[in-house]
Amino acid sequence: MHKQSLILQQKAPKNINELDQAFKLIDQKLDAPSSQLLLMKTRYISIDPIMRVWISGAKTYLPALQQNDIIHAFTLSSPVDNQNDIYFGPAGLQTHFLYDKTNKKKQLIKVPRQMLQILQKCELQNSNLLTIILNGLPAYYGLVDFCKIQKGQRVVISAAAGATGLFCIQLAISMQCDVIGFTGDIEKIKFLQNQFPTLRIINYKLDDWDKQIENNSVDCYFDNVGEYMLEKMIEKMRKNGKIALCGSMGSSSNYNERQGLSNMNQIINKRLKLKGITFNQELNKIQAAFDYLFQQFQQKKLRIFQEEYNQLNDTPKALKRLFKGDNIGKIIINLDNQTKL
Amino acid sequence: MHKQSLILQQKAPKNINELDQAFKLIDQKLDAPSSQLLLMKTRYISIDPIMRVWISGAKTYLPALQQNDIIHAFTLSSPVDNQNDIYFGPAGLQTHFLYDKTNKKKQLIKVPRQMLQILQKCELQNSNLLTIILNGLPAYYGLVDFCKIQKGQRVVISAAAGATGLFCIQLAISMQCDVIGFTGDIEKIKFLQNQFPTLRIINYKLDDWDKQIENNSVDCYFDNVGEYMLEKMIEKMRKNGKIALCGSMGSSSNYNERQGLSNMNQIINKRLKLKGITFNQELNKIQAAFDYLFQQFQQKKLRIFQEEYNQLNDTPKALKRLFKGDNIGKIIINLDNQTKL
Repeated sequence: MHKQSLILQQKAPKNINELDQAFKLIDQKLDAPSSQLLLMKTRYISIDPIMRVWISGAKTYLPALQQNDIIHAFTLSSPVDNQNDIYFGPAGLQTHFLYDKTNKKKQLIKVPRQMLQILQKCELQNSNLLTIILNGLPAYYGLVDFCKIQKGQRVVISAAAGATGLFCIQLAISMQCDVIGFTGDIEKIKFLQNQFPTLRIINYKLDDWDKQIENNSVDCYFDNVGEYMLEKMIEKMRKNGKIALCGSMGSSSNYNERQGLSNMNQIINKRLKLKGITFNQELNKIQAAFDYLFQQFQQKKLRIFQEEYNQLNDTPKALKRLFKGDNIGKIIINLDNQTKL
Repeated sequence: MHKQSLILQQKAPKNINELDQAFKLIDQKLDAPSSQLLLMKTRYISIDPIMRVWISGAKTYLPALQQNDIIHAFTLSSPVDNQNDIYFGPAGLQTHFLYDKTNKKKQLIKVPRQMLQILQKCELQNSNLLTIILNGLPAYYGLVDFCKIQKGQRVVISAAAGATGLFCIQLAISMQCDVIGFTGDIEKIKFLQNQFPTLRIINYKLDDWDKQIENNSVDCYFDNVGEYMLEKMIEKMRKNGKIALCGSMGSSSNYNERQGLSNMNQIINKRLKLKGITFNQELNKIQAAFDYLFQQFQQKKLRIFQEEYNQLNDTPKALKRLFKGDNIGKIIINLDNQTKL
């Protein structure tokens, strides 16, 4: 029995065009599982901005990658002999793996069957669950749980056409906020205008982008990029405003060249509240988050925008698209249509 | 009738030793007040770190100072003919002024008589009210209202021997927290050790200061300095920890040379919550704050540490002491003992 994996051949190249050099596809023999181990098949892989950090070898909430390690990725997977059970977790860029349920380090979480049933009721695909977990939850935690956005408030969202940004836009529009989205691409502007006629879109690549928002006028900023844009947005915030921090890669392609934040004093003067947001927020909040999101889907206030690839080896290509900002919405590697073992 | 004022002669000199050059004492004739105006006498003046920003000419929540403007300062003042009424507000570095009660821009707030009575019951001086408002309230808002510190939690406080720091230390000790204070001066270390035997003190001027706190071990950080120390403390924070931001001047003597904050990504990964804290937090919270603080005074869990000067013209000397970090606790210019008009 064999599996394919993508391993780290070379740490984060500076030039995105050379990204392929970081990855190496290998074919490995997989031993037959002992009674304690489940043979798992990876079904869907999430392509996320944080992968840039992982392939740089930095330590995050996951262990730092060494050369030849299987590269981290969040996936949905199932036991080969029971496709009805779905597990979520950082199982990595591999088609199959042996899972020791008793090893808590692997941190796979079995998705409750009830949740899968609700998904189907909402006419959502199983692959959508990955997007809901990794991007819908942060959007909810940031805007609904932390910022507590209200009708009429001005809400600004950066990387508006990204996977998390699209959730944010829809949640804020559904709440009847005055929603402003940042994007830097003509195609994305057209797409957003078509999909969300009430959304105000600002092209942040224009010189005067920040002039288009009055200082001290924003109640809530959902920040997917950090750095320079965060600094500018601090000027735009109202007193007692809230900033959900959900991304810090900014526009720099190199993880080690990030800029600092130099206007902390305004955070004090304006009594701003900031919170770091990740999908794995306080566990006791997950149920409320899913309830809220599923209700939005049922009321047709939420749609998922996904772009799919079908081979493990598509990952470098998909990642390059993500890092260049060419994608709209979520990128998923869908391995569910591959030949079975 | 005459008054004395300190006006801005020259914007923020880089060298603290040349600070006197920023100030000029002038003597002005004061017109007899019309019926709408109250002739006010300044009784106590607060000497605060933010004065460094004001004399730099920067715009804060108060208007930017121009040359020859009376320099901003928070004061307690009384009508000359009614010393029982006390007003709080940014009346500036002047011995007397005409106050138009109908002009909301001046923003003086009449201190409720009930509060003055409670002060006296706690055996506190009227001048202490200025310290409670400007330093006790931020300590309360940061640690009690925002961080919600609990028994056993690790709480770290920078500028521990400063006016706000001393309130923070006492509130956290009273809550039976594991309290760590930063200071950079041998005299202050001795003072803190004598006053608070359970306090752990770290001299941040030692090379290994940050090694004395394990990474990911701090529940709450009350930040009075920002910059480099804030950056280091972000490493020390536990997941879901809270940081009260109450000062951003750091160790740099020049307002324009402040450093940026470069590890925002850790704020995200750890899901930290940050909030800018000022004494003039949400107005509806003031009563609860005073109730809490007065109870602490009555239970002898709070004491006020004040250093007093007696002439308006002592301000540059007092400020230099503050900026050099030579003071312990609050610095007040007490004009209440001056000859009456």
